[in-house]
This record gives sequence, structure tokens and C-alpha cells, in this order.
Amino acid sequence: MSQGQGADKRIRLGMVGGGQGAFIGAVHRIAARLDDQYILVAGALSSDPQRAKASALELGIAPDRAYGSYAEMFKAEASRPDPIDAVAIVTPNHMHFPVAKAALDSGFHVICDKPLTTTTADAVSLAKLVKDTGLIFCVTHNYTGYPLMRQARAMIADGVLGDIRNVQVEYAQGWLAEPLEESGQKQAAWRTDPTQSGLGGCIGDIGTHALNLAAFVTGLRPQRLLADLHTFVPGRRLDDHVQIMLRFNNGATGLLWASQIAIGSENALRLRVFGSKGTIAWGQENPNVMWHTPGDGPTRMLTRAGAGANEAAGRVSRIPGGHPEGYLEGFATIYTEAARAIVAHKSGNSADAAVIYPTVEDGLAGVRFIEAAVESSAGGNVWVDL
Amino acid sequence: MSQGQGADKRIRLGMVGGGQGAFIGAVHRIAARLDDQYILVAGALSSDPQRAKASALELGIAPDRAYGSYAEMFKAEASRPDPIDAVAIVTPNHMHFPVAKAALDSGFHVICDKPLTTTTADAVSLAKLVKDTGLIFCVTHNYTGYPLMRQARAMIADGVLGDIRNVQVEYAQGWLAEPLEESGQKQAAWRTDPTQSGLGGCIGDIGTHALNLAAFVTGLRPQRLLADLHTFVPGRRLDDHVQIMLRFNNGATGLLWASQIAIGSENALRLRVFGSKGTIAWGQENPNVMWHTPGDGPTRMLTRAGAGANEAAGRVSRIPGGHPEGYLEGFATIYTEAARAIVAHKSGNSADAAVIYPTVEDGLAGVRFIEAAVESSAGGNVWVDL
Amino acid sequence: MSQGQGADKRIRLGMVGGGQGAFIGAVHRIAARLDDQYILVAGALSSDPQRAKASALELGIAPDRAYGSYAEMFKAEASRPDPIDAVAIVTPNHMHFPVAKAALDSGFHVICDKPLTTTTADAVSLAKLVKDTGLIFCVTHNYTGYPLMRQARAMIADGVLGDIRNVQVEYAQGWLAEPLEESGQKQAAWRTDPTQSGLGGCIGDIGTHALNLAAFVTGLRPQRLLADLHTFVPGRRLDDHVQIMLRFNNGATGLLWASQIAIGSENALRLRVFGSKGTIAWGQENPNVMWHTPGDGPTRMLTRAGAGANEAAGRVSRIPGGHPEGYLEGFATIYTEAARAIVAHKSGNSADAAVIYPTVEDGLAGVRFIEAAVESSAGGNVWVDL
Amino acid sequence: MSQGQGADKRIRLGMVGGGQGAFIGAVHRIAARLDDQYILVAGALSSDPQRAKASALELGIAPDRAYGSYAEMFKAEASRPDPIDAVAIVTPNHMHFPVAKAALDSGFHVICDKPLTTTTADAVSLAKLVKDTGLIFCVTHNYTGYPLMRQARAMIADGVLGDIRNVQVEYAQGWLAEPLEESGQKQAAWRTDPTQSGLGGCIGDIGTHALNLAAFVTGLRPQRLLADLHTFVPGRRLDDHVQIMLRFNNGATGLLWASQIAIGSENALRLRVFGSKGTIAWGQENPNVMWHTPGDGPTRMLTRAGAGANEAAGRVSRIPGGHPEGYLEGFATIYTEAARAIVAHKSGNSADAAVIYPTVEDGLAGVRFIEAAVESSAGGNVWVDL
Repeated sequence: MSQGQGADKRIRLGMVGGGQGAFIGAVHRIAARLDDQYILVAGALSSDPQRAKASALELGIAPDRAYGSYAEMFKAEASRPDPIDAVAIVTPNHMHFPVAKAALDSGFHVICDKPLTTTTADAVSLAKLVKDTGLIFCVTHNYTGYPLMRQARAMIADGVLGDIRNVQVEYAQGWLAEPLEESGQKQAAWRTDPTQSGLGGCIGDIGTHALNLAAFVTGLRPQRLLADLHTFVPGRRLDDHVQIMLRFNNGATGLLWASQIAIGSENALRLRVFGSKGTIAWGQENPNVMWHTPGDGPTRMLTRAGAGANEAAGRVSRIPGGHPEGYLEGFATIYTEAARAIVAHKSGNSADAAVIYPTVEDGLAGVRFIEAAVESSAGGNVWVDL
Repeated sequence: MSQGQGADKRIRLGMVGGGQGAFIGAVHRIAARLDDQYILVAGALSSDPQRAKASALELGIAPDRAYGSYAEMFKAEASRPDPIDAVAIVTPNHMHFPVAKAALDSGFHVICDKPLTTTTADAVSLAKLVKDTGLIFCVTHNYTGYPLMRQARAMIADGVLGDIRNVQVEYAQGWLAEPLEESGQKQAAWRTDPTQSGLGGCIGDIGTHALNLAAFVTGLRPQRLLADLHTFVPGRRLDDHVQIMLRFNNGATGLLWASQIAIGSENALRLRVFGSKGTIAWGQENPNVMWHTPGDGPTRMLTRAGAGANEAAGRVSRIPGGHPEGYLEGFATIYTEAARAIVAHKSGNSADAAVIYPTVEDGLAGVRFIEAAVESSAGGNVWVDL
Repeated sequence: MSQGQGADKRIRLGMVGGGQGAFIGAVHRIAARLDDQYILVAGALSSDPQRAKASALELGIAPDRAYGSYAEMFKAEASRPDPIDAVAIVTPNHMHFPVAKAALDSGFHVICDKPLTTTTADAVSLAKLVKDTGLIFCVTHNYTGYPLMRQARAMIADGVLGDIRNVQVEYAQGWLAEPLEESGQKQAAWRTDPTQSGLGGCIGDIGTHALNLAAFVTGLRPQRLLADLHTFVPGRRLDDHVQIMLRFNNGATGLLWASQIAIGSENALRLRVFGSKGTIAWGQENPNVMWHTPGDGPTRMLTRAGAGANEAAGRVSRIPGGHPEGYLEGFATIYTEAARAIVAHKSGNSADAAVIYPTVEDGLAGVRFIEAAVESSAGGNVWVDL
Repeated sequence: MSQGQGADKRIRLGMVGGGQGAFIGAVHRIAARLDDQYILVAGALSSDPQRAKASALELGIAPDRAYGSYAEMFKAEASRPDPIDAVAIVTPNHMHFPVAKAALDSGFHVICDKPLTTTTADAVSLAKLVKDTGLIFCVTHNYTGYPLMRQARAMIADGVLGDIRNVQVEYAQGWLAEPLEESGQKQAAWRTDPTQSGLGGCIGDIGTHALNLAAFVTGLRPQRLLADLHTFVPGRRLDDHVQIMLRFNNGATGLLWASQIAIGSENALRLRVFGSKGTIAWGQENPNVMWHTPGDGPTRMLTRAGAGANEAAGRVSRIPGGHPEGYLEGFATIYTEAARAIVAHKSGNSADAAVIYPTVEDGLAGVRFIEAAVESSAGGNVWVDL
């Protein structure tokens, strides 16, 4: 719901990808809309120019800003008096790099889905470009938007868990237990196609989320990994099951398990962090609850915005405890935090220190992780540096 | 996020109440925005004209539509070429009736918070007015917007549970276990003040939600009640704890428990329905899961949009299973369903049969319920007809 | 496992009922054996003398102590040099009174299943007899044997929850959702037969457990009730569904719900106690966990013998936390506590103050509860004193 | 509770270890007693002869069978007319081998705690001795006694899960997060002492249980492992944290995580098995529930002895569903199954095919697992054959 005809201070957004038949584009649009910080004014919503335009009109985008390609959009918008401020990139993985590069080159801020690129080299070059241009670049590792993950990060930073000793993180799905891609299902097809997804299947699609969340919450840097990648479904061209040992920069150990063949799991992203003074445990499917056990007392159930909530969680909560916020709210928080950074950038400032969003460096770490895991597994499950 | 400068097919909304310091107004605005079916263009956001205008400007409402009172708004809008289509009423309870009546009299559709009014007489007169005008009137019994409650309703209508024998419904909160109203906390103050809330405290604030949900899901009509209302916190002027026996039109029995002094509960709305062929159980705080036990097999965990989901749930789901939708999405569904009815009304049609939203009759049932419960309890816990 | 041929300090037990085809007799025997405080030496295990003797021999009871009737057993044992110390009564309800009376008259301690008797008059007379003889009389309200229920009772006695305001207790089963008794299933048959069960069906079988647990844990006395009893299964002769409002001696309110037609429930006995300073919640089906919310902090998960466990729980725990104790251990605790009282009685003392077992007075309260509930419901759901 | 003076058909048991101050000995005694299949008649309950005799007398063992050493016991018993049938070995790990060997050499059946021995060589020699003597040898991997683990094993053997693809098993404890052994706590002291525990700390104490359970339930043989063992608590002499990748004989992959420094975990043994047609998940701390998701439908909650229970579970269940059985009952099932094998052996038969207990081969597999894990970890986390 926009703010009517008043002076509109919202960020003008253009979108690449996300047209008819796509999934994640609609999520990005709801996320951008939820806190009323963005207005979608332009789009190149499909690689097929016809579909791109039709999709844009369906969404109420003005005909002259319903573009047939991202190149066309960036060129035209750059010369308008009221150009877009930022670009949301929601294409299949292999297009993230060229689109993001072009957007930055055109002077637009970028909000990009993950994984950042399909090669580390591309990711490194993108990170350099971001640094050089000084533009805001946000990678939608959306699970870091959940209030209780913000709370966990702050608790650990404050030493509540003591020294972190071990991290158990997993992300299990079951929807690819059968060769769904053979039926032509679009989501399955591109995710299992190396030309669109890059080197990694399951590891890129969800393994990167798991790694990112573990690093985000603990504040630690994964330093080495030893990976065991498998493809259980005959004929599939990319991994669908991942087991990884981790070693963090402080010596902490970790296990990361990701699977897309785990029947019975929907989006079972689960994180447990064990420290010398306590433990936290959390699961994405019921994200308004987190468990904290101090070393010297019983386990406590912390709820979003409930007793025991801290400021880091409160900043990004919209409604009182017991009324669940979900995936879309977490995703919206990523957009809203990026909006704060963009608004600050417009007035020549840095965002407030409390503002957190996943950066191009986080995206680069994810791409390195994919490459290292593939290398480790192909090399016989050996340690590889990150 | 609006649709830019394209032809805007969204419903033009005016809001009454919900200005600075209010809570539920912001929820209504997010709900209206989430599915991009509404545009907020006008407001009389406070009973204090200064605050009303300031609040409207903050929200980006054009200055000429930032009204000082609802009467002023209805008059001015009715004479514009582009008037509001609908009014959202988010004031304290005692104002629902005059505002809703005035809105209907001015020819606007209404989306009104619950309880509908503070007396049955007012509610009856409102229901008559809705019938006479043919306008759309939606009461935001938002919990009926949860996909799994839609699924449960459809399952029961399809006979999956057989004859309904018993309903156990409860709504527990703990935030009023202490006399919070004495501290001047605004939410606590008006909810415990009979001049703003009407006859009922806990029973009106949350008991009506519990009753409404039970009736919605089972498709049964509560026919009689026997109530035991209490005020546990000394000095409080309205009930804060409610125990009620119910009898439904098919002979089913029920218990309804609502409390605002149940320490440890946030918004623990929980529904269990027992039939001759099976049972369902659901809780609002983790709303993406529902339990169904058929008489002849093990309990099944049904997830929103997961295995076992039906069409009624699918219609109102936005994202795949395992990515939780929450309170705001459920609330948005109420708004979006009302939008469908309003859009149909504009073109002279009835909404599609699948469209469901709580009507003025549901609101009337809630007000009758409050009055009957107060009467039963005052009369020594005797059966009173609904 | 007995202690071989050493001097045997165990209590010599005779059993009435519990022969071939019975259920609860075997439970009592395991319970008696688990902590090695009893030795079963005699039995009148069936009302059918042939079956009684065969059952006894099967259990390894010496042929001369395999009796054909309880009267025979009490007479013969009373004249032996090594008579039984105590009698376990595990017959259908209608036999509890005559057997218990005869046992007490013969000078034996008694451990009797619930409900104590089928009429209040019988229960009163039994209570008087216990008082007069000074013998130990234990009624197996076994759920009070769970360590966390002991912990809850001690916490409440210590004021941890402040003033108790409300009690929600329920016991749901689903096994009688169909007319199982018509199939001749023995457990269903006697429980739905007024000549064997007395006035109450569901209310006597499981409602009494719910009431007893609520009173045990809170330390409060239920003073009045208003009951709504139903029989949902056509042709059934006793109630199978119970809804009751309670008022306790301190003014606390309560709801008790018991059902045997709640499909999907096995033995879902659940207790929630709400006080002015906090709340506890517990469920029998996963009895090693209890939830405690203090008024000023997050909910804490208390585990049996884990962090936060108190002495009352520790006394009756056998193994460390995380290794679950269950129903049989709770039942065994009742037997073992009774053993402590019997041992003390033998040496002319009272048992240690920490020893707790349900007494004849608790049994009497249960019988009164059944009668009052039937009276209230038959009278149109009116308040009846307890 | 023994069977009085009737002809006693119970197995005569002697115990080694488990005297005053010990923990697991009491568990074995309850387990042996629970189903009334054993009678404890002799003991060498401590390595300290004085304490051994005092402990035996306390337990009601006859003075002439209260032995000062296991050697003395085996010699004396072998020459009695009513010798023990079987020996229960509940000493620290390093004594398992000599005692077990001596028991077998003396012709006694053996029930031995795990790990079987401290070296593979000893375990191999013991396995050979068992084969040569034909005696019954049971290793108390007690978690295989849980009814739902029996059910899972039968379901997988019946193909309900299709081809097994992945196994996730974990056993987390938190009690050694601090250097408890430095306080002299007996359980911590011997478990962290290589001279009493052998090569493995956490891996031997609980990792072996996790491996055994995974193999038992899946019916698969772990073929290779790659282990990452850590000692997080400074000064500790054995591992307290274990991460292991597994490969099974059918190609399935697995992860095993065991920890004794996981604050907040008590005995969190958890198993998940993923197949091409479905999944099961189970946790030891609430063992009466198991989750089964078929590939084509919603997750089902299977309860012990409830809807969906199979015969394998029913055989070893004592009481109806909803009345929880726990750790002691599972442990008792191991004893009772061994009793069935011993009884059959006495009459020259094999036990019924349905009888299952962990054998000396299972014990040997555990010892090999410890050695291989230590070797893998010391070698830089490389694959080692099992």
C-alpha cells in the first residue's frame, strides 16, 4: 500500500527476473513492499522480452518502464530524471554476475539473490567493483533477517555463550527426493542444471544459506572444510546431498549437513551453537522460538519480542510476541535494512551501526564455499582452505 | 510497494484511528499493503485533530486528505471525483459503531476491528444497515485467515471428522497478570476501561476471537453458554479470566477458556475439534502446522502448503511449505478476501464462492456472546441462549 | 529380582484380582517389584476360583498360597507364622470396598486401585476403619508418583507461583470413541457397566485422576463443582465425556476436562497451574519435562533430575536426567512410598515427613467428586459442594 | 518381587562390579528384576573385597555368595549344586575383558556392559571364545531395547523406507563441559582416564551407542569412517567431542556426532534415517514417539503401542500407548531377551527368531569403531575401514 499522492520518499526499485512462472521474484516484491520502503517502478522481468513486458504490465509497472532486457532498462533509467535507485536481481544464478556488474556500472545500488555468482573469480571482481563504486550491495541471505538470529548474534558477541566450541548447522529439504527435474518443473530444472546453477546443486542452493547463518550468528569465519558431496537421484547432474566438516578461525569445529532428498523435510534450517558457557538452538520452521541453555541453569525458551528478548531482536520485530512473524517478514527486514543503507548513502552518510544486511563479501564467501566443497569432495574428502 | 504510475486498480482506503501511539493501525496497514490490493489515500487517524493530521502526513497521505475527524473525512471524500472505496476502522471499541454507521451511510465499504460494537442493539442495527445498503462489511477476525484454519473448515465441511462432538478452544495471554493499566500503558488502559471497551474485558478482547474461530472452523453455531468470568487483578474494572461451557446447534459440547493473566502465555490461541471420525488440533503461535488424527490411524502432521494440504489452504498461501507464514499474512488474507468482494461489488457481482471473510453477522455474534457471558456469570453461572 | 536366600526384609504382599486377562494387576506387580521392596507370596487373583489358582501358579506363587477367594486368603494368611503384610486390590471398582474392608478387618495394610469405592457412604466407612485400625491404606493415584509432580507440589508449597489463581487440568483418551464394549473387549466392558464401575464412567476412570493430581500439586481443596457429563456413543450406559468447572478453597477457579472419545489422545493427562507469580505446565505422556514461567522472565524447561530439579523430585528419581522414567516408575514410587510407611508402622513409627502416598482420604475425595459431578449434571449443570 | 517359595524358574545371576558408589550396577539390577526373569544370588561387586562383601549384603545376597573377587566367585559358583547361570559385568571398561573371559571359561553366560573391551584384539578373542563355547553373550547396547527402535528396524527390513540413502545419528551430553573429573566425581573420573576407559572417551562412552543404534535400525554395516575427535576441556586426557563421516555397505552416507560438552543436552541420542521412499526420526529422551514420513504423504506420529505400531514393537511393550515406557524398560528388554536365549540354551535350543539382543559381534564392532576413529583422527581425518 503506497502512501498516496504525498511526497514519496520511498526507494525506486527496478527488478531483473521474476516474471510469470518465477517464484522468488514475488517474494522479493512482497519483502520490498512490506515495510513501505520501496516502490517498484521498472522491470526487465524475463529473458524473453515479450514475457518481460507482459509481466511488468501485470504488476502495474508503467508501459514505458516495462523493459525487454536489463541492458535496455539500465540505459533508459540512467537517462531519466527520476531513475531507479536500486536493482533487485532475481534471475537464475548464472545471470547474477553480468546483471549485477551492469547495474553497478550504471550507478545503481543492488539487491541480489544468492549465490552471488557461479565462480569465485566473478565474485571477487564484483566485490572489487562494489568497493570502487561505494554503492550498496545486498545479498539476500534472508535467514539473517529473523529477529531471533539477530538476538543470537548479539548474545554471542556479548559473550553469553563463552568461547564457541562447536557449531551444528543443517538445512534439509525433501522435494528433490525424486527426479522432479525430469518432469520439467521449472524450479527443479534450473537448480539441477550446471549451466544455470554453476558448480553446486544442493550446496549452492541451500548449503550456502546454512554456512552464512552459522558465520553470521557466531561472528566466526569458517577457515577450512572437508566435504562429502553426493548425488543420490540417478541422472541428476549436480549434488543433492552434502556433509561437511568445518573448522572456524577460533578453532571451533562444526558440521554442516544439507540435503534436498530428505523426505519429510520442507525447509528445515536448524542451527545449534555450543560454547563454553552455554548453548543456543533454533529452527527456521518455527522461527519465533529459540532455546538458550546457560551452563548453570535450565534451558530457557526465548520468544521473539517476549521475555528475554534483546534490542537487536526488537529493532527488527514488527508485532508483539506470540503473534508469529515468518519468512516474508525476515526477508523484508533484509530489504528494509538495505533501504536504510541506501537512504544514508543518498545523504552522503554511512548507515547506523545497528543496520545489518548481508554484503557482497558474504556473497563472495558463499561462492568460495561452493568451490572449496566441490574441490574437497572431488579430491577424496580432504581439507581445503576457505 | 505500489505499482508505479500505471493505471492503479487498487482499492482506495481511508483509515479511522491508528495514529501515533496506536498498535493495531500499523498491523492493518501492513495487512492492506502485503498483497498490493489497497492504497491508503486518506485518514482520520486520531480523535485529536492535530495528532490525526500529523500522523497522516508521516504516513505519506496527501495533506488535503489528512482529516481531523471521521465525519470530516466521509463528507469530503464523498464529494471528490476519486473518493475512497472503503474505510478501515481501528479505533477503541466504543467508536466502532458510530464510525461504521457513518461510513455505511456515506456509501463506503467497511473493514472494522472487533468486537463490532459495545452493545447487541448497536450490532443488530449495523447488521441491518449493511443488509439495506448492500455494502461489503468485514470484521477482522484475523485468525480465520490462517491457511490451516481454512483447511480445517473445509475438512470438517467435507465430513472428514464425522459428526462434531466436542470443541476445546482457548486463548491465553499473560500480559495483564499485573495491573499494567495503572502504569498508564495505553493498550492496557483502554482494554480495561468499560467506557472504551464495553461490557467485556478479556472476553471481548480475545474471547470473541476464540468463539469466532471455533464457529468458523466447525461450521456450527454456538447456541447456549454458561460462563464463569473473573477479575483476578485487584482494582481491575473488567474481567481478565473467562471459563465458558458451550452447546452448539448440533448438540456438540464445548469449553472456551480465555485469560489475560496466564503468565507464560503470549497469544496462545489453540483449537481442538473432536468428531466421531477424527480430530484436529492447531495452535496460533506455530500456525503452519496442524494435527489430524483419523479414527483409524496415526496422527498426521499437516503443514501449510505441504503434503496433505487442500485447496482451501492453497488459495490463501503465498509461499511453499516450511517457510512460515505468520500473523501478518493471515491478517492480510482477511484484507485481500475483502478486496475481492469489494472488486466484485464494483462490477455489480458477488464475490466467488471461495472468497471468505468475517462478516457483520460474525461481528454481531461476537457482541451477543459478550453480553450473554456477562449475563450468565452475573446470574450465577447459568445457561443463557445466544 | 529378589535378593536370593539372604534375610528377606521385603514386605510380603497378597494380591486380589489381576489374574489371567486382567491388565492393571500386571502393572501393580511390576510396580511392587521395581524397587525390590515387596515379595508377592499369596494371591486370590480372580473371582473364578479355578482361574485364580491357575493364575497364581503361573506367577510362581506357592500352591498353598494360591487362594480361590479373598476371604479364604485373608483367613488362611492371618493364621500363618509368616503372613502377608499387605494386600494389593486390583479388582473392578465394585469389589474395592468389600475386599478392602475385609483386609483391614484382618489386620492387613492395603494398597487399592481407584476409585476407592462406588459410593461415598462406603468410602466414608472405609476411611473411618483406616483411622480406627491405624493401618496403612494407599490408593494408587499413580500420577502423583511422577518426580516432576512432586517438584511442582514443592514449588507451589514454597510460594514460587505466588497465589494460585487458576488450574486447567485435562485427561483425554480416544479408545472409547466407538462402542468397543459391544465387541466384548474386557477393559471396555467393565468400565462402561454401572454394576461394576459405579455411577461414573469416564469421570470415575480418569476424571478422578485429573482431580487428584490438581489437588495434589496445588495443595488446594476443590470446594465446589459444576459439571456437564455426556455420553456420546449411542447405547453406552455411563458418561464418556466430562466438562467441569471447579472452585477451590482459596477462591481459585478451574476447568477439568476428561474424555474417552477424544480420538488421537492416548493418555493425555495435562496440568497447568497459573499463579500470581508464575505458571507451571506438564503433560503425562512426556513426563520428564515440566515448563515453568516466572512472572519476570522466560519460560524454563525443567527436566527430571536435570538443572532446576529440587529435592522433592530427586527423592523419587532413579536415574539421571535425559534417561526417561515413565509410567511404571511413577507407579513404583507409590508402592515404594507405601512400603516406607508400612516399614515404619512395623517398628511402631510414623513414616518420615517426606514420604507421600495417596491416602484413603484422597480416595474418599475422588468418590465424592464422582457423586457430586453426577448430581450437578443431572440437576442441569448447577454448583454442588464437595 | 520374586515369586515366593514356588519352584523358581528364574535365571540365577551373579554380578561383577556395581557396588556402593557405582551407577550402572543399580540400573542392571532393576533391568534384570523388572520382568521377573532373573534372581540375583551372587556378587563380586567391587574390586575392593571389603566393599564387595558389604555391598552384597546390603542387596540381600546370602553371605556365602558375597564374594571378594570375580575369580573367587566363578570358582565357588562352578562347584555349587545351584550355581549361577549367568554373569552381569558392570565394571569400568578395562575389566570387561578379563572378567568376561573368565566367566566364559567357567561356563557362564554373560551380560556385559559396553564397550566390550579396550582393544580390538581382546574383542576378537572374546568373540572367538563365545563361538567356541556356544554360550550366550549379550552386550547391553540398551537403546536397541526401545520398542520404537524395534519397530523402525522392522519397517526398514520390510522396505517401507526403500533404499537407505543417509543416516544422521547423534548423541549429545553436556555434563562434561567443565573439567568435572578434577573434582573427583567418580563417573567423570574413570570415563576420562585412559587406563580405565581405553582409547576412547566420548566416542567409547556414547559414540558406540550411536553407531550401534544406526546399524541396528538400518540393518546396514558401517564400512568406513572419517573421524574428527576433539578434546575441548583443557587437561582432559580423552576426547570429549566427536564428528564422524560414515559410509555403509550399501553406499549410504552418514554423519555421527557425539559430544559430552554440549551444554543443555542430557542424553540426546537422536536418529534420523532417510530412504528413497521415506524417512524416520526418533529421539531417546521422548522415546514413545517416532516420526515417519512416507514419500507420498504427510508425516505420521507413531507412538509406542499406538496406532501404526507393528508386531516388533508390540513384543517388547508392557503397557498401552500414552503411558510412557522409558530407559529402564528398554534396558530390561535387553535382559529379558537375553533371558529367552539363555532359557532356550538350557533346553538345548536356539531362541525364537524374534528374540533380539546385542551380541558379542555388536560389541566387537563397537571396539573396532573406537580404534578406527582414533586412527582416522590422528591421521589427519582420513578414511579408515571398519
